[in-house]
Amino acid sequence: MSTAAPSVQVQLPDGTLAEHPAQTTSMDVAKGISEGLARSVIAAEVDGKIVDADRPLGELATGDGPLSLKLLTSRDPDALDVLRHSAAHVMARAVMRLYEGVSLAFGPTTEGGFYYDFDIPEKISEDDFPKIEAEIKKIIKDKEPFERFVIDRDEARKLCDDLNQDLKVEHIDTGLADQDTVSFYRQGEFVDLCRGPHIPDAGKIKAIKLMSIAGSHWKGDTSGRQLQRLYGTAFFDKKELADYLEQIEEAKRRDHRVLGKQHGLFAINPEVGQGLCLWLPKGARVRVTLENFLRTELLSRGYDPVYSPHIGRVELYETSGHFPYYRDSQFAPLFGSEVGGLLDAWSRRLESGTIDADGEDKLMAAVETLGVELPNYKPSMTNEQKIAVLNEWQHNNERYLLKPMNCPHHCHIFKAQPRSYRQLPLRLFEFGTVYRHEQTGELNGMLRVRGLTQDDAHIFCTADQVEDEFRATIELTKFVLKSVGLDDYRVQLSLRDPDSSKYVGSEQQWDNAEGSLRNVLENSGLEFNEEPGEAAFYGPKADFMVRDCIGRSWQLGTVQLDYNLPERFKLEYNGSDNSAHRPVMIHRAPFGSLERFTGMLIEHFAGAFPMWLSPEQIRVLPLSDKSLDYAVAVARQLDEAGLKVTVDSTGGKVQAKIRNAQLDLVNYMAVVGPKEAETGHVALRDRIDGDLGSMPVAQAIARLQKEVADRTVRQAVKGSAAPAVETGATGNEG
Amino acid sequence: MSTAAPSVQVQLPDGTLAEHPAQTTSMDVAKGISEGLARSVIAAEVDGKIVDADRPLGELATGDGPLSLKLLTSRDPDALDVLRHSAAHVMARAVMRLYEGVSLAFGPTTEGGFYYDFDIPEKISEDDFPKIEAEIKKIIKDKEPFERFVIDRDEARKLCDDLNQDLKVEHIDTGLADQDTVSFYRQGEFVDLCRGPHIPDAGKIKAIKLMSIAGSHWKGDTSGRQLQRLYGTAFFDKKELADYLEQIEEAKRRDHRVLGKQHGLFAINPEVGQGLCLWLPKGARVRVTLENFLRTELLSRGYDPVYSPHIGRVELYETSGHFPYYRDSQFAPLFGSEVGGLLDAWSRRLESGTIDADGEDKLMAAVETLGVELPNYKPSMTNEQKIAVLNEWQHNNERYLLKPMNCPHHCHIFKAQPRSYRQLPLRLFEFGTVYRHEQTGELNGMLRVRGLTQDDAHIFCTADQVEDEFRATIELTKFVLKSVGLDDYRVQLSLRDPDSSKYVGSEQQWDNAEGSLRNVLENSGLEFNEEPGEAAFYGPKADFMVRDCIGRSWQLGTVQLDYNLPERFKLEYNGSDNSAHRPVMIHRAPFGSLERFTGMLIEHFAGAFPMWLSPEQIRVLPLSDKSLDYAVAVARQLDEAGLKVTVDSTGGKVQAKIRNAQLDLVNYMAVVGPKEAETGHVALRDRIDGDLGSMPVAQAIARLQKEVADRTVRQAVKGSAAPAVETGATGNEG
Repeated sequence: MSTAAPSVQVQLPDGTLAEHPAQTTSMDVAKGISEGLARSVIAAEVDGKIVDADRPLGELATGDGPLSLKLLTSRDPDALDVLRHSAAHVMARAVMRLYEGVSLAFGPTTEGGFYYDFDIPEKISEDDFPKIEAEIKKIIKDKEPFERFVIDRDEARKLCDDLNQDLKVEHIDTGLADQDTVSFYRQGEFVDLCRGPHIPDAGKIKAIKLMSIAGSHWKGDTSGRQLQRLYGTAFFDKKELADYLEQIEEAKRRDHRVLGKQHGLFAINPEVGQGLCLWLPKGARVRVTLENFLRTELLSRGYDPVYSPHIGRVELYETSGHFPYYRDSQFAPLFGSEVGGLLDAWSRRLESGTIDADGEDKLMAAVETLGVELPNYKPSMTNEQKIAVLNEWQHNNERYLLKPMNCPHHCHIFKAQPRSYRQLPLRLFEFGTVYRHEQTGELNGMLRVRGLTQDDAHIFCTADQVEDEFRATIELTKFVLKSVGLDDYRVQLSLRDPDSSKYVGSEQQWDNAEGSLRNVLENSGLEFNEEPGEAAFYGPKADFMVRDCIGRSWQLGTVQLDYNLPERFKLEYNGSDNSAHRPVMIHRAPFGSLERFTGMLIEHFAGAFPMWLSPEQIRVLPLSDKSLDYAVAVARQLDEAGLKVTVDSTGGKVQAKIRNAQLDLVNYMAVVGPKEAETGHVALRDRIDGDLGSMPVAQAIARLQKEVADRTVRQAVKGSAAPAVETGATGNEG
Repeated sequence: MSTAAPSVQVQLPDGTLAEHPAQTTSMDVAKGISEGLARSVIAAEVDGKIVDADRPLGELATGDGPLSLKLLTSRDPDALDVLRHSAAHVMARAVMRLYEGVSLAFGPTTEGGFYYDFDIPEKISEDDFPKIEAEIKKIIKDKEPFERFVIDRDEARKLCDDLNQDLKVEHIDTGLADQDTVSFYRQGEFVDLCRGPHIPDAGKIKAIKLMSIAGSHWKGDTSGRQLQRLYGTAFFDKKELADYLEQIEEAKRRDHRVLGKQHGLFAINPEVGQGLCLWLPKGARVRVTLENFLRTELLSRGYDPVYSPHIGRVELYETSGHFPYYRDSQFAPLFGSEVGGLLDAWSRRLESGTIDADGEDKLMAAVETLGVELPNYKPSMTNEQKIAVLNEWQHNNERYLLKPMNCPHHCHIFKAQPRSYRQLPLRLFEFGTVYRHEQTGELNGMLRVRGLTQDDAHIFCTADQVEDEFRATIELTKFVLKSVGLDDYRVQLSLRDPDSSKYVGSEQQWDNAEGSLRNVLENSGLEFNEEPGEAAFYGPKADFMVRDCIGRSWQLGTVQLDYNLPERFKLEYNGSDNSAHRPVMIHRAPFGSLERFTGMLIEHFAGAFPMWLSPEQIRVLPLSDKSLDYAVAVARQLDEAGLKVTVDSTGGKVQAKIRNAQLDLVNYMAVVGPKEAETGHVALRDRIDGDLGSMPVAQAIARLQKEVADRTVRQAVKGSAAPAVETGATGNEG
């Protein structure tokens, strides 16, 4: 689409306009501003697209107006991606220098770095990393430039063939079959088929490290050719790399799977099922607290509770559109008939055209053997007619689906009673457990599960109410995040695709909805960014992108507008004009799911929950068995005051009891001996701050109750939680 | 087993012993005491067995000791059953007099009466009832006796054949194939194959009524012969019949399905699935209150919360023993492979021997067509070997079951951590939703469902702790029932079968367990009865048999001891002797399920929940729109005080608003006009007692809060709730 022009008009982010010859590059523009700027340029963003800094701007003009140019330096988040992809090339070049017969596959970036997939006869191990890293450093030191060139497909195929890159040849034949020309990048002796863009020269890579090696497959197909995947990361400076490595170490220390087991929070047992959480008593107490907190909050904010079953007839999900399209990520249906699965498999093969008359005869023979007749089925029918007959049969033989989402059930609750505009907005909430059949390899403790309990709600409202309801959900989410001490976030607003064929609903509807959402966010004081084209086809949405205390980002608190399900379920309310109208639906979940949110909190707090969420808020430690009765009496008082309390009745020394309480991440300890028993006191000890001195039980209770009521969050500082245990705070007391 | 003896020693309930000739009947004994007693005798209980009053006692002696005799009069509950079964004969006799070609099937008693199944060419309708009842009255008036006679099988067959009773002939050939002799009862021209016992003569039936007519099938087999089932009921006096009919009418008025729809409490929608409750906002509020109430109570009583998924691998239920034995009452498994269902069907046919080599070939061809290989399967194997191969294959291709109970999951939570005797008793509770595939015909609103949420808990304890734990669960159940105003109940204690081969665990274990349970009940002050042989094979249990306000009986609050699952799941704790021990498990659920309990409460309260459970505790009614602002302000105060409040903002007259609030069963109304706004008052109105006068808002709040906190139950009086609406309490106010 590029049009070579004798000159090109360029607009910089500050609005300045300038006319340049068509051959002028972004780097030239930078040099025109200052040599210092030019040295720090990594790449350029031209009309919203990231490109090499040495591309002639004339080639890149896309419209009649001036071309917008933003010079990317190491401070731009997008620049890091360019650096890392270039680092992948550098790593591949080093590998090719060190190993024989290397076939290159692909080398993309990842969230934390990059990888390259190779087919290499020799097996690489972590022991080889120093050797490869040394070679990488040599390449970086040479500061060779990345040079782009474009050739036509046939030439490209021949070039790759000459380079013995058979995987690239295959990719040109298949993946790039519709392209006339193909781009390559050359860096010294290393030439790679690549879309780019790249950094100006390898010297920009100031910090690089190989991370791990793993097996992979050509184009992700597990039946395809086996490859070796080498992971690495790269940064613009060494400090950033050190911080990143420290973050990884910190994340390991906070791994919720390790802490979950260590502190008895949850368990996953393959005998019960992979990806299915068993919430152990301590974890369940945290969840009960979270649920009670949110339920109370929702009831006070005008939500109505509902409960719905965990299964629904398959037809429910045909209506919603989730079946059969998402069936690979769902558990198999529960078939009401023993031939249900067989007929389903048959129907799928008819759909994909992967069954012939002979195969059909065999399936029919099996169906008849199992005593079922399909009188309406005729071999002479078209595949479509056959599928219709099979579907008809399934409809008559109840099939259920383990529910992958709660919305269809809530739509039916909306429909269960006649609705008037006076009842809107109707906000239905439920802690609804849904099931999705995530791939085994994707499962990760509580963070990626097969059964998840959403703090789900569906708001049914008029188009006019969307803005107020969106504002209220944003406020609710802010409140919820603040309550658990998460305050570092921005909102991402996903807008519709410019291609109107990709979404349902009118331009007018979308304009209004997006305008409302933008308006709310602009007035909220929240940092937010817009992502055009990222909306679902049925409505715009907003996500809270939350950073935890070690800098990782979590997508939480999604608010999703939906113009589709009300249509599909034919939802209606009686308007003030006494005629039927369709409501708008808003899906929202501040936590997302109890599983993932709790898993995230475990990692964020390194297992040391703040007082109000803690499953064990205080432990009473008798100095010796002689004080056990008093300890029990104190514990009863604390319990009656609503505090989660235990008594350490083991016979050891109080120093050991303190150490155990610290290791168990109990928030407070109440040490009691004969002196305390005499005066009705406790010697209160804070897990973080240590000894708080002796005080009457009532005073300790008041202090702890206030911390619960205020939902004070003190612990979520990097390194402060877990190390508090490791540095050992024993022996100061008792 | 009867031994004819020249004389028989008889002991009466008061302990008196007497020697009688062997031919003496119970009726003779009664006559010996008094003619009045003899007139009131209905039947007799001899050595625990109910028999006709005219049976010679010598025939009935079973042992060496004296025979125990209890004369049954109309005051004995067991006598009613004898009366009703005789009434079924009388009804059948009347039908045979009125219709041609009647084939008799069976005529048993039911909880509320009796029925008889007939094959009659003519179709009976309710219009025929007066005619049949008139004939019945004639028969009763004749006071003919029921005469028993016993003949051998061949004679019996011939007799039935002569009487043209082909169904009775079939029953003698099949159902009674192992009996040498068969008993009949003759009443005038009516002769019926029957085990008895019967009343002395038809005149004992003082009240009888035909209730309904329905279709049925011979021996309940839906593919068998179609019959007509005529239902009736009978009593010893007319007042009892009138009370019973009134109870039925009252139950109809209280039908939770009708009230549930009318008041928006719950909905069941075949598009979602039969037997699956959608809890609408008002019903869900009741459930939230019940759950919060019980959760708080359980936490304060030393229970630990847990959560578990709604599915589990099939192997989990093989371990527990619930699969495959109970599979007909479970939903089908979720098969991990698309041929799972087919292989399962195959395996079941191998088990029942209902597949031949040809059938197997056809199934194998289908399996292969679907791309699956069974390399270990050989046609030459035995059925058992084949089943093992198929099971092995299923084990390798994850199958899940929608959980029919929570116990296996809780066993795995017990096992998830090492357990010490110090942690016992460990009481794990969960509001756990389970799924059972009840037959469509059995479903009944919330009372009989396919998805039910148990207020489930499993207590893991030592044998020594069983008694204390049982006592605590009995106390908890009493507390829960009292909180909802149910105080008319007795406990039924189910003990082991005398045949020790029918249960697991040692005699010693059972003696201890039953002794503990009996001891607790004896000291509890509760009315209780023992039912030997009614225990499950894995332990004794206790049920609360609760009568609701219209006299119906509900089985609630089961407490079940279990020696089986700890064995099957190999549960262990480390004892004080530092060696491994097996815990005892106690299952208990005071509510039973939230669905059934709520359904029962709806009927018990006729939809008018007591204050603390009410989904709408108070409604603010502005005199006119001018007072709407004040009404909203008052509602806010009530809401902040934790009360469930709404505002009637419709524009009508206050009389209409009061009437609507009464119809909606709102507990209180706060009527507000300009006068109230000026003084900060409300005119409080009680749904039951009417106008309570004007008072400051704070005073109204205090009154209502107290009623909530005290869990006062005022409404559950027969007829007081629903009729309060129908008699109309409008127009007194405003």
